[in-house]
Amino acid sequence: MTAAHVRGFGRHPQLNAHGELHHLLSIDGLPMAVLERIISTAASFINVAEREVRSVPLLRGRSVFNLFFENSTRTRTTFEIAARRLSADVFNLDITRSSAAKGESLLDTIDNLTAMQADMFVVRHAASGAPYLIARHVAPHVHVINAGDGRHAHPTQGLLDMVTIRHYKRDFTRLTVAIVGDILHSRVARSDIHALTTLGVPEVRAVGPLTLLPAGLAEMGVRVCTRLEEGIRDADVIIMLRLQNERMKGALLPSGQEYFRNYGLTPEKLALAKPDAIVMHPGPLNRGVEIDSRVADGAQSVILPQVTFGIAVRMAVMAICASSKTMQ
Amino acid sequence: MTAAHVRGFGRHPQLNAHGELHHLLSIDGLPMAVLERIISTAASFINVAEREVRSVPLLRGRSVFNLFFENSTRTRTTFEIAARRLSADVFNLDITRSSAAKGESLLDTIDNLTAMQADMFVVRHAASGAPYLIARHVAPHVHVINAGDGRHAHPTQGLLDMVTIRHYKRDFTRLTVAIVGDILHSRVARSDIHALTTLGVPEVRAVGPLTLLPAGLAEMGVRVCTRLEEGIRDADVIIMLRLQNERMKGALLPSGQEYFRNYGLTPEKLALAKPDAIVMHPGPLNRGVEIDSRVADGAQSVILPQVTFGIAVRMAVMAICASSKTMQ
Amino acid sequence: MTAAHVRGFGRHPQLNAHGELHHLLSIDGLPMAVLERIISTAASFINVAEREVRSVPLLRGRSVFNLFFENSTRTRTTFEIAARRLSADVFNLDITRSSAAKGESLLDTIDNLTAMQADMFVVRHAASGAPYLIARHVAPHVHVINAGDGRHAHPTQGLLDMVTIRHYKRDFTRLTVAIVGDILHSRVARSDIHALTTLGVPEVRAVGPLTLLPAGLAEMGVRVCTRLEEGIRDADVIIMLRLQNERMKGALLPSGQEYFRNYGLTPEKLALAKPDAIVMHPGPLNRGVEIDSRVADGAQSVILPQVTFGIAVRMAVMAICASSKTMQ
Repeated sequence: MTAAHVRGFGRHPQLNAHGELHHLLSIDGLPMAVLERIISTAASFINVAEREVRSVPLLRGRSVFNLFFENSTRTRTTFEIAARRLSADVFNLDITRSSAAKGESLLDTIDNLTAMQADMFVVRHAASGAPYLIARHVAPHVHVINAGDGRHAHPTQGLLDMVTIRHYKRDFTRLTVAIVGDILHSRVARSDIHALTTLGVPEVRAVGPLTLLPAGLAEMGVRVCTRLEEGIRDADVIIMLRLQNERMKGALLPSGQEYFRNYGLTPEKLALAKPDAIVMHPGPLNRGVEIDSRVADGAQSVILPQVTFGIAVRMAVMAICASSKTMQ
Repeated sequence: MTAAHVRGFGRHPQLNAHGELHHLLSIDGLPMAVLERIISTAASFINVAEREVRSVPLLRGRSVFNLFFENSTRTRTTFEIAARRLSADVFNLDITRSSAAKGESLLDTIDNLTAMQADMFVVRHAASGAPYLIARHVAPHVHVINAGDGRHAHPTQGLLDMVTIRHYKRDFTRLTVAIVGDILHSRVARSDIHALTTLGVPEVRAVGPLTLLPAGLAEMGVRVCTRLEEGIRDADVIIMLRLQNERMKGALLPSGQEYFRNYGLTPEKLALAKPDAIVMHPGPLNRGVEIDSRVADGAQSVILPQVTFGIAVRMAVMAICASSKTMQ
Repeated sequence: MTAAHVRGFGRHPQLNAHGELHHLLSIDGLPMAVLERIISTAASFINVAEREVRSVPLLRGRSVFNLFFENSTRTRTTFEIAARRLSADVFNLDITRSSAAKGESLLDTIDNLTAMQADMFVVRHAASGAPYLIARHVAPHVHVINAGDGRHAHPTQGLLDMVTIRHYKRDFTRLTVAIVGDILHSRVARSDIHALTTLGVPEVRAVGPLTLLPAGLAEMGVRVCTRLEEGIRDADVIIMLRLQNERMKGALLPSGQEYFRNYGLTPEKLALAKPDAIVMHPGPLNRGVEIDSRVADGAQSVILPQVTFGIAVRMAVMAICASSKTMQ
């Protein structure tokens, strides 16, 4: 196992020797075939939610531990729902109150929980890379799902965006997708750009004020637009990002009202996109800051279906990882 | 849906078009037939608790979300037990730590959870009317149970009192019921008075110091008694209320000892009631303030059976609401 | 019931009239036959954990309440896993936020939960003796498991140590067992000494600085060693104790480094024990304080198997108690 984190040694941190998903750590580096399998498996679970009995026995007898070193009630709840719909035994650990607080190391905590027969860890941690550290350390039969690590990645959020786009637009290779807002600080934007590019989207646009756009977008094949009107013109898909409150009082932006005037999505601006364009948002919404309520609640909004698809994609990721028997 | 909260438009906030219970928001306005159905259904669940297998499959595959915006471990636990005995999937949300704290609106939170396929919300909120707001907003197949909204209502507590009285006294139309204590600040007293009146109790008495009695009792057909001896004389049922600690240091009451001397239920005072009178209390008890331990633990006390019936009545309300298919 | 706590009246606080385990409060006073039954039942559950389906239906339909008046996420989680593997309904009560905080007495809280049809309480409390108080009070069909009461006892931890020793060493009557560290403040050491003595271990050694050794060890048949080298020489089993951080800054010990130099278990010192000696530790580890990482992670360490056996022994205790029908 010790060579696993050495770059260039041919070992993929997320895939097993057969190229199957064993851990989900990031969308970066996932081959198109793996992305496609996740998306199509999620689509099959969307129907499960509408049946009289919503659970499937794919993880029966398996123990899933939600390890949230950082609080996020909503994300934890979605993973708990997904795991229980797969018939897993789910254990929520309030890790901020546990032995970790007594000075035990992260990996000793993981070893102890594995000794309690954990089969899968869903990890959220403020430190970028923490889920990688855990994935390299665990026994070969144990799976790690990244539920958000610092500013680095939040792959299931990116994947649910892909499931949503597939559901409404079918063919990725004909789309124009605009991502609007604070791309610099967004884990979702990063995941989305990687996934959209891998899935063959010909035009991905990053739209926002220069202070909220990271360097290197052009090198990733992304078109940079600092004006919203330009960014969403003729788009098929508009992904609005949440503006963190702390940005609004910082040096990066003058104010929420000012931001809304320039980058807030109103019905008038939405009219510039294609007539059947869909509007997405990862939630929670800042109504009147990045999005007008008439758009958020309007006919083109797919914000609530995204939440539903989020359960399905988490079920898909867990089921696919659990079917990968060992990491080697 | 928008006309639903307009008074006088014929739409009942809790009942569907067939007059069946769809949400439980308050005992106010529930017809006698609905009250009777809840009470008799609860009676049938009391036996479930005594069987080897205590669960029934009435809510199998349904998702119940406990949304406690205000902390109440005991009430939450009783609803969780009830929902699990009905075979529901129960999710407890620590809502004080969730997106609601990030500034998301109450109704956006509800929409998101509904998109996760919630079928029923059990809501506790410090603001009176919050469960009504939610009930008006949710999709027609979703149910809302009020687990306490500010000072307004706590209907399952009132209903368990009715189940208790029915269990021990059978015929409501021959009873004298005394409610003793801080009626002014009690959600339970309000619920009880409505239910007892609807169920045909000929004499309901409100007993307490004038500073803790609300105006308008006489108009509700309630007899006001400021002396305990008068209030409980020949009563069949005595409902003692909990005295909130904050009342005892406020301007409304001189002290706990003084209160106990005047309104505390001792064996001597209890002897003024009928010999087979039952003594009820919603808990938690302030022993030596509103009730003497010899009474609380005595032969006429039904305080612990009330707790057991509380599970049964919550099962009954959930099962009845869940059997109402749509709100329209 | 009132005579139950009177010493000398022949009533055992943990055993029913047939000498069967009804509550688990302490290892003290458990007869060898009861200890042996727990150990052999636990051994049978170790295999359950390795099956495809890890649950057994022994507690199906029974309600287990985790009452943690003192926070311990790890211990609570192990009991929750154990109870769920026995198919019980498990309810975790955040008791620090409950009615107990409104001034309700401990026994009123217990009575209320019993009225909700609790069948078993797993209790952790800062006050020594709290589980005894509860065990004396509950109805005859209810069981109490002590999950740690102040400095007094933590019996399942001691029992899992016995399961571990039985697993690796089989015959207790030929062993030399060294317990090393802060024996004065350790609930585990106390439990272990009682169990080892009862199970016939011929030589039990207590090893540590005089400031951390309690009086009376010799009277219990324990050999006192203030030098680690003497204490672990030719030992079959070495039980390392966790050094609480607060000890290291107190008057009892000069520093963590100093402690490690004298009592830390290094590979060099471990070489003094028998070649097949096993090294145990209750966790969480203070690496570099009481134990060197090369020992903790080495071939003789059974620290992680202890965690696995901890689930099995908690299952065993719950299953055995639940099979004792009444306490009388």
